[in-house]
Amino acid sequence: MDGYPDNFLWSGVASGVKRKGRLDLGLVYSSFPSTVVGVFTDNSLPAAPVVETRRKLAEYAGFHALLVNSGVANAATGSDGITDARQLEKRLAGQLNIAPEQVISASTGYIGRRLPLPIIYSKLPDVIDGLQSAPEEFSRAILTTDTCTKTVRIPLPALEASLFGVAKGSGMINPRMATMLAFFFLDYPVRAGWLKTQLVRACEGSFNQITVDGDRSTNDTVLAWAAELPGRTPVDGNHPQAGCLTDALHEGAEKLAMEIVRDGEGATKTIEIQVAGASTSGAAARVASAIADSPLVRTAFVKSPPNWGRIYSSIGAAGVALKPEKLAIKIDGTLIFAGGKPVATRAEQKKAPPPGGEGHLVQVELGLGDCSTRRVTCDLTEQYVQINAGYS
Amino acid sequence: MDGYPDNFLWSGVASGVKRKGRLDLGLVYSSFPSTVVGVFTDNSLPAAPVVETRRKLAEYAGFHALLVNSGVANAATGSDGITDARQLEKRLAGQLNIAPEQVISASTGYIGRRLPLPIIYSKLPDVIDGLQSAPEEFSRAILTTDTCTKTVRIPLPALEASLFGVAKGSGMINPRMATMLAFFFLDYPVRAGWLKTQLVRACEGSFNQITVDGDRSTNDTVLAWAAELPGRTPVDGNHPQAGCLTDALHEGAEKLAMEIVRDGEGATKTIEIQVAGASTSGAAARVASAIADSPLVRTAFVKSPPNWGRIYSSIGAAGVALKPEKLAIKIDGTLIFAGGKPVATRAEQKKAPPPGGEGHLVQVELGLGDCSTRRVTCDLTEQYVQINAGYS
Repeated sequence: MDGYPDNFLWSGVASGVKRKGRLDLGLVYSSFPSTVVGVFTDNSLPAAPVVETRRKLAEYAGFHALLVNSGVANAATGSDGITDARQLEKRLAGQLNIAPEQVISASTGYIGRRLPLPIIYSKLPDVIDGLQSAPEEFSRAILTTDTCTKTVRIPLPALEASLFGVAKGSGMINPRMATMLAFFFLDYPVRAGWLKTQLVRACEGSFNQITVDGDRSTNDTVLAWAAELPGRTPVDGNHPQAGCLTDALHEGAEKLAMEIVRDGEGATKTIEIQVAGASTSGAAARVASAIADSPLVRTAFVKSPPNWGRIYSSIGAAGVALKPEKLAIKIDGTLIFAGGKPVATRAEQKKAPPPGGEGHLVQVELGLGDCSTRRVTCDLTEQYVQINAGYS
Repeated sequence: MDGYPDNFLWSGVASGVKRKGRLDLGLVYSSFPSTVVGVFTDNSLPAAPVVETRRKLAEYAGFHALLVNSGVANAATGSDGITDARQLEKRLAGQLNIAPEQVISASTGYIGRRLPLPIIYSKLPDVIDGLQSAPEEFSRAILTTDTCTKTVRIPLPALEASLFGVAKGSGMINPRMATMLAFFFLDYPVRAGWLKTQLVRACEGSFNQITVDGDRSTNDTVLAWAAELPGRTPVDGNHPQAGCLTDALHEGAEKLAMEIVRDGEGATKTIEIQVAGASTSGAAARVASAIADSPLVRTAFVKSPPNWGRIYSSIGAAGVALKPEKLAIKIDGTLIFAGGKPVATRAEQKKAPPPGGEGHLVQVELGLGDCSTRRVTCDLTEQYVQINAGYS
């Protein structure tokens, strides 16, 4: 056993949508059909494959194939885009001898361009031929501006199964080559309703807490595939291994989310923002996002020690009622502000131990209640601008 | 007559708070007392001078002096900061032979540092001695990362008066050297309540529509001073010149706001975003801010033609229900997206005339109602990161 879930075969090829022979078309084949659940972008202008996948998950069950292309997002393409996605799924289904309803597709790349169907059609035989039991090529084929593949494997010995996760994304939204995608595969059956609940919770604690540029893409998609292997009782909340599976999903989502932030465009370090003591969870979220989405805070962390005044000002700009005398701010464990005034001198801030391998930690205590949350972002560097302005 | 309003004297000196002998202490003296009204930051952690000025405007009338220091914001300084501001106002009042209640102060600069009172005290005689009828030194003394002074003069011949406005700011919030400040001076009496209403409206159409980094500072302050010159009937809504004065305030605020955006840190061009056809004004504002605050949109405008997919995605990320088939996007007059799909090819986009001296114009029609708004921002360049990361 190589540690990847049984039942799934993966492949990835260079169709020519992306230049320089880079892999841009990935396929996953589920030998037994899979139960599939998804969490999608809340962007009000979702891309065609998001619209189409939402519909399929609602109307059908028992999926066999996931086709992912990178380079073109099939977003802002209207009804043409829906037609294109369906045509592509139908063509693949024919070659795999399955029903079009058993194929799911996802796209990431330029917004406003239609899928180059003839180019992709010509490579479908290759991507089918390439199916194998290791996901390296698939993991590369879904990337865009990412500098590395993002995968996680978690064995579930009690189920004699394993969970494999694979993601792409190096801006939470990056419409240059858009989107965050993440897929989980498990070689064990799971009840769809329960799996959906667990996936939503795992996303809330991970993908929904990271931000690179504060935006949400047209194509963001997270899917969990659970193979309907025979002779096994599907996992749900009453199954003795339910807790293990939930833990694995959370662990996998957290690891992939952190890899996405670490690979944030131009990033040199991560910044975790913990907000506690808010009177409501909404207030905690507003304060945490105000800090994490502030270009000034993110540029402040390019050098050390950071200018904490920017964090203070962002907290105030969150639109939440505050009591300065109850506010406390710590950076990398050093108390900077408390009791209504600064408490660490600049010299003390410089003497503080440098952050560990995990990057910087900002802790904000509002002193107004019991609600808390966190965000993880990365520093905003000149390279971010170069990456995103270089494209025209 | 040199075009500046009578009754006011200005000066600016280098106190030593800022390095290299740069001007950092400005004073305005109103010979007859002035009616003063203000609009302040909605940051929940306002700086000491904001708290103090709000209180004074509510409790007193007839102001004689405005003292502005740059370099230290007197923010995040708690009750010490309030005490410092009051001590400084008291000291200045003593030297001007006026009551402390007739002095207003404002600060801009580092957050989290107390005012260096002994340094400033030592220069009060100089800043008083320097008072003169032209505001050049004052205009420079209030700057921080600004690269140029920002002033506007509007004659009001029917009143035999003139309105002078002066501002600083090169990030809407820039806690490195924080804040937007703007002051208007008129040598004609105006009723306070009516003036406040007009100032609020002028700010809504100008300062509240510009954004450099999407934040609101602890110190943002806009004040209007109207000299209580004898023998004149104070202007209010029934005065025959009310419309002229309102227009002058709007024109002055618009000009200063645009100068602030143009001087945005690292900016090479302005980007005006007009959103129309929203079902509510709140929805229009959310869409406009989502575009204007997106680092991806702002970096897209560093080169031409910009990647419009980022604008499309930001519109969808605004959290507003949309109908893609009703959405239309124009960039610099070229229709890019309409009827649910792209309408301009990339070649057509390149052929479009380059933007005029006023910068780029993005027009978004949502097709859902009658509400509209605008935002003006600037491109996000490598220089922005250098300016803001270079500081530590």
